[in-house]
Amino acid sequence: MKIHGTRTAGNPVRVAIFLAEKGIEVPFVPVDLTRGAHKEPAFLAKNPAAEVPVLELDDGTCISETIAICRYFERLKPSPALMGIDALDEVIVEMWQRRVEFGLYDPARHVVRHSLPFAAALEPVQIREWAELNRPRVLRAFEILDQQLAKQPFIAGPRFTVADITAFFAMGVTKSIDLAIPGGCRHLTRWRSEVSRRPSVAGVLGSAP
Amino acid sequence: MKIHGTRTAGNPVRVAIFLAEKGIEVPFVPVDLTRGAHKEPAFLAKNPAAEVPVLELDDGTCISETIAICRYFERLKPSPALMGIDALDEVIVEMWQRRVEFGLYDPARHVVRHSLPFAAALEPVQIREWAELNRPRVLRAFEILDQQLAKQPFIAGPRFTVADITAFFAMGVTKSIDLAIPGGCRHLTRWRSEVSRRPSVAGVLGSAP
Repeated sequence: MKIHGTRTAGNPVRVAIFLAEKGIEVPFVPVDLTRGAHKEPAFLAKNPAAEVPVLELDDGTCISETIAICRYFERLKPSPALMGIDALDEVIVEMWQRRVEFGLYDPARHVVRHSLPFAAALEPVQIREWAELNRPRVLRAFEILDQQLAKQPFIAGPRFTVADITAFFAMGVTKSIDLAIPGGCRHLTRWRSEVSRRPSVAGVLGSAP
Repeated sequence: MKIHGTRTAGNPVRVAIFLAEKGIEVPFVPVDLTRGAHKEPAFLAKNPAAEVPVLELDDGTCISETIAICRYFERLKPSPALMGIDALDEVIVEMWQRRVEFGLYDPARHVVRHSLPFAAALEPVQIREWAELNRPRVLRAFEILDQQLAKQPFIAGPRFTVADITAFFAMGVTKSIDLAIPGGCRHLTRWRSEVSRRPSVAGVLGSAP
């Protein structure tokens, strides 16, 4: 099997960290998004949504969507569990993973795509007003996560999970748009520092940010 | 247990159809969004994201996020399977569920919230340009789904799944913004007609749309 997508850029990073936590090695095949390689027919046949990462199995089956790819590996190698240790925990992890995707990553992504010059090619047009509307949503998500991390070491409970991977990745996006963690969010700051030092994260992204 | 959210409006509809397919009865407690009931402290304690539905278990545990709630019931009553019949199928269903959420439902929702008068109270400001940018994305999603439905009866394969529920619900949203299925998308039209006649769907939404 192989994964289409550059291992150190964008959503493939989430899969790379997930795999590192599991101790699974899968080759990544870089996809040059700046050249539009994800919009060519050969790639669209693998994922009509024109997005990386795509997991291609040995029989040619292609799985896209970061979280679906993570679940494939969770089923392939259940330990260490990153998507829940039992049925209820699985649901709690999914809830937090989605809260982080919709509450933090999604608005941060909109700010990037509609305000940063490098992202101009990613949208038909950049709408500054839409970017500005999303900035306070990111700050609200910081507060919600900080309240959660005041109660427990990781976002979905006592264990590191895929919700932490999504959140750490999204926090990296917020740095590019100058949305720093507010000073009062000390639990979120503590969590980010700890996660940055995990061998999986440091191994994929280099030294701690 | 009980579900906070009006059974026939918004995302709670997805859970209601899912439960009807499973043959599970759970009471829904209406939440008056127009009155801002979802932004009051009592509700925010159940879901800081201020969104319905929320599943409240008998011990007070609150689960939000539609798909996490669906997975709770999938684990509680595995048959009929709506989220995959084995590990690989589970991943395929999740992939399509997410493709529909991000490719169809998400842009349709943005068009509604940024162009329809009734939705003005849902956003800090309505940005018409953002609504217009999302309209072609909905049409592109129609094409992708039509291509998929040319090959198989349902969106994620031979069986009705949660991906069909998300897609059917999202199609209802597109009707409110005058984005009809293009005439060439006959497979999508066939699928929608069939899904509208399922007892679960007709039972929750009334007669076929």
